[in-house]
Formats: sequence, structure tokens, C-alpha cells
Amino acid sequence: MRREITGFSNPTVKYLRSLRDKKHRKREKRFLAEGLRLLTDARECGHVPETLVMATGRDPHPLLDELESAVEAAGGEIIETTPDILAKITGKDNPQAVAGVFAEFDTSLTALDRSRSGIWLVAQALRDPGNLGTMLRTGDAVGAGGLILIDDCADPFSVEAVRASMGAIFTQQVAQARWEDFLPWLREGAGQLVAASLRDAVPYRGAPYTAPCFVLVGNESRGLPEDYEMACDLRVTMPMRGRADSLNAAVAGAVLAYEVLDGLEQN
Amino acid sequence: MRREITGFSNPTVKYLRSLRDKKHRKREKRFLAEGLRLLTDARECGHVPETLVMATGRDPHPLLDELESAVEAAGGEIIETTPDILAKITGKDNPQAVAGVFAEFDTSLTALDRSRSGIWLVAQALRDPGNLGTMLRTGDAVGAGGLILIDDCADPFSVEAVRASMGAIFTQQVAQARWEDFLPWLREGAGQLVAASLRDAVPYRGAPYTAPCFVLVGNESRGLPEDYEMACDLRVTMPMRGRADSLNAAVAGAVLAYEVLDGLEQN
Repeated sequence: MRREITGFSNPTVKYLRSLRDKKHRKREKRFLAEGLRLLTDARECGHVPETLVMATGRDPHPLLDELESAVEAAGGEIIETTPDILAKITGKDNPQAVAGVFAEFDTSLTALDRSRSGIWLVAQALRDPGNLGTMLRTGDAVGAGGLILIDDCADPFSVEAVRASMGAIFTQQVAQARWEDFLPWLREGAGQLVAASLRDAVPYRGAPYTAPCFVLVGNESRGLPEDYEMACDLRVTMPMRGRADSLNAAVAGAVLAYEVLDGLEQN
Repeated sequence: MRREITGFSNPTVKYLRSLRDKKHRKREKRFLAEGLRLLTDARECGHVPETLVMATGRDPHPLLDELESAVEAAGGEIIETTPDILAKITGKDNPQAVAGVFAEFDTSLTALDRSRSGIWLVAQALRDPGNLGTMLRTGDAVGAGGLILIDDCADPFSVEAVRASMGAIFTQQVAQARWEDFLPWLREGAGQLVAASLRDAVPYRGAPYTAPCFVLVGNESRGLPEDYEMACDLRVTMPMRGRADSLNAAVAGAVLAYEVLDGLEQN
């Protein structure tokens, strides 16, 4: 279905804009992704938007044609609107922009298949959506299975997280769980829980990582609670040569994940 | 000198707020840093604010007392103001907040002493202040000498960059230069220029890093220009196991910097 919208007060415009808001996303179980590259990544991973929004008078692009065809083939909706209205929806002043609406994925732990990969990233109380998206992107790069969000994290379906993931929201599995549910789930099967720590830790370099390895990163300002650290199978330290006693959470996760990747490939 | 300000329209309040703006920072050659921890880090590194701003009715804190003494001893100014006005200045709704005004540092290349460290971070056209601050923080962690900003980067003295640096703006040297000035400067002395690249590259793991090693990271969306890459002494590849062909710039810099740190310590 294809239609044109020219009024700011159109209910569909209001609906699309409302998806920038967590409350509305959770109610609708839908999220927004923006940009031709991101939407193309999504399509190539088998995720076609339910609704595709484009500006009238845009430049043609073969990838956009493919996207339109995919949406039509899947019975989705294509909306053409003015560059101004599109800018309101995407929050970006770019008349070449496209945006798509996707159904949120199942984020229950039980939907995860831990045999899918030797590396999983786990974040606890990660509050910054940019850090969350960056961890998804890193997960994709190291071939992780996905990202498990423990306790109160930023919303992985926020526009900022989706954008920072650079498409990895569509390649990485995402789960959300409380710690008291995560730990029993982890212990039901194989899985080594690893965190950077100063307590009773070994050097991160060349530590005895085993697959599937779950790399746990804590909150941006408080780090991990002590009992979470003590529940880990392996605590590792990273060199801190300066005044600071910690790294940015997404950076710490990445340095550790790359070390785990190398360790698993050596074994 | 100590004084109290109670009016939003006070010129000093306007001046302090204006420092959130790059144009004003450059004109005044001053920048804002916020938070007791950041200001304490600064003090411990020998940087005392010219002006310290605090809220009336704040909770006492021994570190705040030390900060006040240091400012007074250095002949600086202490301003007490209402929590509302302080929130306007810092952009944060936190009545316990403190803010300090610092003179911008000399960021000319000639002020750098390359013998100071075996690792230097170099960023080209890095546009995100959060990424810039994160690179400073990572630099501190790996014991880098500083961060060299090539071409048009975000402002290292912006509130966002200073905040993301978690104090490393005060421990890391910062230089700003055009590429055409940086390269001759680099070649005047010892220095290995290293970048992550897909062109004619060797695996990043265990590559022949030598000190002083300059780790070069490119723009968030475009990466490095090809001729910049080709000017490097060493091009390395990092594993990319997923769909994405790049990492977040600050993450790539960190993974590479930690590898360089290990490599230099092995040699």
C-alpha cells in the first residue's frame, strides 16, 4: 500500500513521531530505524519494515528501489511525505532520509540460542543508548551471538541505540533480564561469565577464556555490584597506566571481547 | 575573592553560560569543567580553576574544602549562587554540582614532547565530542602521552568532551593540527604511524609496533582518507566477523592502543 501524507497533524505522522518516545514504543511494540544504509542492512538480514517513509522529490537510488520492492512484497506500507515532515519524524534535517518502522524483537532470555556463538556480551545497568548501540556494533564485529541487558538498561530500540549500532540491532540477538533470572539461565547450560575487575583477578591478556564466553560490563559510573563480580567464573584486570581507574563501558567491553576472540581462536 | 550572585541576568552568569558555546570559548580561551570528581582530578594534576562556582546550601565535602583552598591560594575567584542558576550554568539539575573555569591549554604541536610516552593517539576529523573525550580517557588508561587532533575535529574543550574524558583532559596533552603540518612534524623525529586499514595490512595482533607509536583513527563515517593511510608506517587489520566493516572510532582506537601497549611491553 502506498500513500502520500502532506499534513503535520496527520495521525500517522503523530504515530511515527511518537516512536521516538520509549513509552509509546513499548505500547506499540514498534521502533524506528533511519537511513538507507541501516534499512538496507536490515533488509539483507531479513528484516523488512512494516512501514517505509520517504520524502517526495528525493533522489532515486537503486537500494531504495530494492527496499520499496521488499516492503511491497511483504505487504507493508509506503508513505511519501514532504521533506519537512520527514525531518520532524526522523529528527534530522536530511531530505534524502528514509525511515522504517519495525516490530520489536522478542527479548526474552529463552529466545537466545547460546550455541550460536562462542562470545556473548552482557551489560548491566548500561544507561547510555550510545554505549548500548556501540556494544551491539562491537558484538557484530567480534562475531558475538548477541547482547544481554541486565537490570535497568537503556532501551535497545531507542533511535540513538539503533543508530549507534550501525545495523547491528538487526544482526545481534538482544535479551533483557533481571540478574536473578539471568544467573540461573546461564547456569542451566555451558557458559563462562567473565568481568573486568580488581578483585582476585588475573591479567586479561591470555586469560583462560572458554566458549561460550559471556563478557560482562557494568554501569557507566558505578561499575558492577560486588556480588555480580563474585558470581563470575573469571575476573580479569586490564592495564590502567594513568590516573583513571576505569574505561568507558563500551570501550572496556570491546577491548575484552577482542581479547576473548583471540583467546578462543588460539585454543 | 569570594562573592555571591543571585540574579540570572548577572554578567558573570552570562559569561559562564556562554562558555558552553564554542565561539565564546575560543574568544575567551577558557572552558568549563563540572563535577567535584573532575575538578579534584584537575587539582591533583596541578590545574586549579580561575573561577569556582558552587551552590549555596550545598552539603559540605572535604574535597570541596580542598578545592576552595586551592582556588583561594591561587588568587582565583569563588562564586556562590543559587542551585537554579548553577543548574543553568552547568546544564544539569544537581544542586551539589560545582563548576570551574579553566584557561585552555596550548594545543600547538610544538608543545608536545614525544619522548614523554611510547604511545600517542591521533584522531582525524573526529566529530563526536563523546568519542573525543572517550579517546582521552583511553589514552590516560594506556599511559599515552596525549591526543593529537588532525583536521576538523570536535572541540576538546567542549563540556561533552571534557565530561567524557573523565578528567583525562587534565592528564593528556592535546594538540590540534592540519595533516600537512602534522606529517612533517612527525617525520622530524622518531615515530611510527599506525592505522587500522584494509589496504596492504598485517594482522593487528602481534604486529611490529615500535615506540613512540602514533595510533591513527579516522572520521566516524568516512574513516581515513586513502593518502593518510598510505602515509602510515604500519597498516593493521582487526578481525571483523560480522556484517559491519568498521568499529566505532573510539572503540577501534582503544582496541588498537591496548594491543600496542602489550606489544611495546613485550619488546
